[in-house]
Amino acid sequence: MGAKNVFLKNVKIRDEFWEKEMELIRTEVIPYQWEALHDRVEGAAPSYCIHNFEVAARRNRKIREEKGAYQPPVYTTTGFCVWPESLERVEERFYGFVFQDSDLYKWLEAVAYSLVWHPDERLTAMADEAIELICAAQQEDGYLDTFYIINDLDQRFTDLRDHHELYCFGHLAEAGVAYYRATGKDKLLKAACRFADCIMEHLGAEPGKKPGYPGHEIAEMALMELYEVTGEKKYLDLGAYFLNERGKRPYYFDREHEVPLGEKDAERYHYHQSHIPVREQREAVGHAVRGVYLYSGMADYARISGEEEMAEACRALFENIYTQKLYITGGIGGTHLGEAFSFPYDLPNDTAYAETCASIGLVFFARRMLQLEEKRQYADVMELALYNGVLAGMALDGKSFFYVNPLEVVPEACHKDERKFHVKPVRQKWFGCACCPPNLARMIGSIGSYVFTETDDTLFLNLYIGCEAVMRKAGSEATVVVESKFPWSGKVNVCVEGDGKAKWSVAFRIPQWSGWTQETAVEKVRRQLDREAQITARDGYVYVKKSWGKETICLDFPMKAMLVQANDRVRETEGQVAVKRGPVVYCLEEIDNGKDLHRIRILDHPEFQETWGMIQGNKIIEIEGKGAVRTALSTRELYQEYRSNGYEQKTLRWVPYYTWANRGEGEMRVFSRILEEK
Amino acid sequence: MGAKNVFLKNVKIRDEFWEKEMELIRTEVIPYQWEALHDRVEGAAPSYCIHNFEVAARRNRKIREEKGAYQPPVYTTTGFCVWPESLERVEERFYGFVFQDSDLYKWLEAVAYSLVWHPDERLTAMADEAIELICAAQQEDGYLDTFYIINDLDQRFTDLRDHHELYCFGHLAEAGVAYYRATGKDKLLKAACRFADCIMEHLGAEPGKKPGYPGHEIAEMALMELYEVTGEKKYLDLGAYFLNERGKRPYYFDREHEVPLGEKDAERYHYHQSHIPVREQREAVGHAVRGVYLYSGMADYARISGEEEMAEACRALFENIYTQKLYITGGIGGTHLGEAFSFPYDLPNDTAYAETCASIGLVFFARRMLQLEEKRQYADVMELALYNGVLAGMALDGKSFFYVNPLEVVPEACHKDERKFHVKPVRQKWFGCACCPPNLARMIGSIGSYVFTETDDTLFLNLYIGCEAVMRKAGSEATVVVESKFPWSGKVNVCVEGDGKAKWSVAFRIPQWSGWTQETAVEKVRRQLDREAQITARDGYVYVKKSWGKETICLDFPMKAMLVQANDRVRETEGQVAVKRGPVVYCLEEIDNGKDLHRIRILDHPEFQETWGMIQGNKIIEIEGKGAVRTALSTRELYQEYRSNGYEQKTLRWVPYYTWANRGEGEMRVFSRILEEK
Repeated sequence: MGAKNVFLKNVKIRDEFWEKEMELIRTEVIPYQWEALHDRVEGAAPSYCIHNFEVAARRNRKIREEKGAYQPPVYTTTGFCVWPESLERVEERFYGFVFQDSDLYKWLEAVAYSLVWHPDERLTAMADEAIELICAAQQEDGYLDTFYIINDLDQRFTDLRDHHELYCFGHLAEAGVAYYRATGKDKLLKAACRFADCIMEHLGAEPGKKPGYPGHEIAEMALMELYEVTGEKKYLDLGAYFLNERGKRPYYFDREHEVPLGEKDAERYHYHQSHIPVREQREAVGHAVRGVYLYSGMADYARISGEEEMAEACRALFENIYTQKLYITGGIGGTHLGEAFSFPYDLPNDTAYAETCASIGLVFFARRMLQLEEKRQYADVMELALYNGVLAGMALDGKSFFYVNPLEVVPEACHKDERKFHVKPVRQKWFGCACCPPNLARMIGSIGSYVFTETDDTLFLNLYIGCEAVMRKAGSEATVVVESKFPWSGKVNVCVEGDGKAKWSVAFRIPQWSGWTQETAVEKVRRQLDREAQITARDGYVYVKKSWGKETICLDFPMKAMLVQANDRVRETEGQVAVKRGPVVYCLEEIDNGKDLHRIRILDHPEFQETWGMIQGNKIIEIEGKGAVRTALSTRELYQEYRSNGYEQKTLRWVPYYTWANRGEGEMRVFSRILEEK
Repeated sequence: MGAKNVFLKNVKIRDEFWEKEMELIRTEVIPYQWEALHDRVEGAAPSYCIHNFEVAARRNRKIREEKGAYQPPVYTTTGFCVWPESLERVEERFYGFVFQDSDLYKWLEAVAYSLVWHPDERLTAMADEAIELICAAQQEDGYLDTFYIINDLDQRFTDLRDHHELYCFGHLAEAGVAYYRATGKDKLLKAACRFADCIMEHLGAEPGKKPGYPGHEIAEMALMELYEVTGEKKYLDLGAYFLNERGKRPYYFDREHEVPLGEKDAERYHYHQSHIPVREQREAVGHAVRGVYLYSGMADYARISGEEEMAEACRALFENIYTQKLYITGGIGGTHLGEAFSFPYDLPNDTAYAETCASIGLVFFARRMLQLEEKRQYADVMELALYNGVLAGMALDGKSFFYVNPLEVVPEACHKDERKFHVKPVRQKWFGCACCPPNLARMIGSIGSYVFTETDDTLFLNLYIGCEAVMRKAGSEATVVVESKFPWSGKVNVCVEGDGKAKWSVAFRIPQWSGWTQETAVEKVRRQLDREAQITARDGYVYVKKSWGKETICLDFPMKAMLVQANDRVRETEGQVAVKRGPVVYCLEEIDNGKDLHRIRILDHPEFQETWGMIQGNKIIEIEGKGAVRTALSTRELYQEYRSNGYEQKTLRWVPYYTWANRGEGEMRVFSRILEEK
């Protein structure tokens, strides 16, 4: 059941926009992060990630040598943020967050993708060195988490809710799979399998095992991947076990912790999405990254197992995000408290969390939904998140990062209003909790694997990213070349080359923003092909079935700036509109439009002008349009009788949202007030 | 220098609106609070206030009896919120907040005012009983704070920053002065003086004393009152000392605490207004109640001492609040973090703090500014706060209270969004930290003392509240009778009766909301008087100087509903307007206007209709006007291309802001979007 994604190895990216990003990852981000993981970046918070592995590896060796003579140190209860005062005083102990290991795994995954795209001996050597280190830290029984290896192995698996062992395992497995697929080397994959086997010894339904599941999800989808790459059903079963146990009463986390969470029984486990069994979940709640990671695992399982009940839960959760909890930028997580989904339609612009990692997780979820059922909206969301909420997380030079991606920023408020301290007006270097930068690296590096999905007889073109792909279709090799200038032009040429012997389909997504109906799309394609082609459309895709020789189909999606409004129920954007062009959301910045952006009005017929511009060496399309600013009332009074003082015309300049805050600190707005013209 | 206020005893309130409120205080609030202070109100958080005094009194007796044999219990470091699990398990120790004593003092102050207005034997007996108890707890050296008496007297005056001894002293002194003025009984006043003397033994510039000052201000203004009622200059000096030491480097609070506050040197003492010397302060910052209490003490001192530098600081601070930090309701404190002033023009409606106590404190400050210089804006602010931000703090039945007075409420957000957990959609009964209810009781009970201020030859009529006042003017007795239907009608009759022998002035405030210029006001008054009267105007007051026989002046201030807008720099109200009628701010409630108030538009020519209405037995003027609601777009999509879908006409109904949330839980808005008509 369901569709496969076309492996990265079979997709060669040939895309001006994304190649630039990938090159940035290869030449800037990955080397920078290697230094950061080694605590060698001046001015950045030390990671201690490699340090922890080194300590664990030395201790491991020592344990093997001294068998039992080793006394573990005093157990630190949480391990959060235990930084030494200076690098000179680093001791032989664990530092950083309990999930610090995962940064190295994410880095390795990014390296794997980068090597597929661009072989690099130095990078290979670095990665192999890291893998050696990781394996040196692994215990004889397969256990692999430096926090517990260093602190006290007897305490492992005692705090699944907060201590992220299974989260680190998940990232290890994803890195192992990626590195194996990229290089054919299976050392890390085998380490992941051994850790999975170790987990199975301790967790599960059998007597003597703990019926636990991860506090921070990811292991679920990682285990599905481990199953798919190894064919070992036990990994599928473990993933399914984690999904099935989640939300059962009595709560495992209550059995594990003497003091239960909070007081409101129904809501206290929202944060971990463990409040009710996953098949009953219909509303996306709690920590947004955890949420979409869980839903991704659920969607994988639904596809692999064919279970309709699970598929239905996935559909409902996606629908809930799509219709009630999604920022126009593809960001999710309306509140920084718990980095979480807020209640339906609560999408504040200035206090948004919209974590970069959460948008990345949404792409994971959307791709998996697409594998479950080929419906346009999943690809639409994937594209939206990629060009906006994800890319905004990284500076155009790849050297600084956002965790939080607000839609409205007044720097003074970020500096002076504690409610907005989580919102940064400029990107930061490496953080102590550095989840977003390496997540970005692995996301961008694997962009090629999001372009297509396929079934036996159909190739789905989901993202219009320039590339060359080879695959087997109807028994023989087929090649597809996509030429695209996305996201700046809607014109796409797709050249399909087959051996002409059997019929199979290519399905092209009709982006919602194009405004094309299915009929329009069918008609546009029909004109370009001979009568033999069967052209149909459903769920936002045009299906072209034929025996392919070498044919080129040209799609010319209308891509023009437009005003977008949110649903009436979204309080925070009432009376306001945003500017979007194709998949790209735009914003107003102070540097282009002056201070006090709140006073700006967009005219309802803004007569947009689109021109090429440049931000920090990056070619972009910028947009100008007609706007107005309310004429200032020169008065010291805070309040006075209302009178319409009129408006002054003002030309507004919008730049892509993902490029904001690359030209210094200033105000920014995605949504601005609309002024209906008389 | 400056004006006196006319003592409450000389002003008999005869005002339908305020008498109802005062009767509520007398018959509901004061008896309810007496029960609450005794922990006898079911469903309300226990106060332990009387309990603490009783424990302290018993311990005091014991100490006297056993001289030295008594061993203090283990010192609890903060004393905050140490509640026993149930009333049955109350032990012989201190419970509640460190400032719990102040609740009884505020209650006594309210009783004093109530007795002036309405003698009541039962209430007198209750108050005398309370005073006996307080005095029984007082130490031989005058010390009087049950937290330290119960816990460890050796620790007193060691934590002026956080432990509120001087705050409790301040309320004791205010209660003592009020009870003395009301009843002539000086037992409590003397207790306050003895405590002040004790404080002087420990704090001050002399060797061996601590150069400290209060963490929570109020002692400053209380000492000025103690000076004015006793004539003892030492109390003035102590108050001045507290003012003078505040903000000096090195910070006393740093000397007192081993760990300094925060890191940003310049900002860390904003919370206590102790960041810089008071004479240099120009921006209202930090905890709003503390702020206005301090500024009140500064204004008192400026008036008494005639010091221009201090007066200038007071003017600047008032101006800063008035032009940058004041809600339209007279609320202050834009953020719940620190219950504090936010940065200039940051006045969020939905996360406002706008504590009831802060509005009360603003009335204190404004009245004192008025005594310093007779300018209309101080009285305007006093009136605004009283009819809106202060009264909103109490339910119409006097049985429940708001701490926080938001300008926009969506109950779902208050229940589900942690950022708004401080905002309650319905009033609560007694709180553990019960500062607001007794503060309301003393404010309303003393409303008569805010009507007038006077100098030797001028009586200022600041608030148009119906009353009869007697005073000496130009050597003989004069009577002024004010007939008013405020806040519902702008028509006021002022009957002045003198002996006709000497000339003196009555100055009438011209409310800003009336729209009258000084010229208009002079003209209106001139028509009613003979040629002998000298009629002038300055700073928003009309001065009528004559030898008064018995004359009545009728003022008929235009009082009609109008739309009000905030300054351009207030981001949160951009494009929105509020409705105000005279001094009363109005709001829209869900019960009258349906759900989703955010979708409502007010037309710029709303053609207001004003009619009498009734809310919970209270006669009010309600307002109807033309509005519109954006036609709903029936779509599941969160975002779609903008199109003006038109508006549906809707008649809107506004009720006075202070009456909101008296008819169940629902949405509320003060500001709504304006729709400029074409």
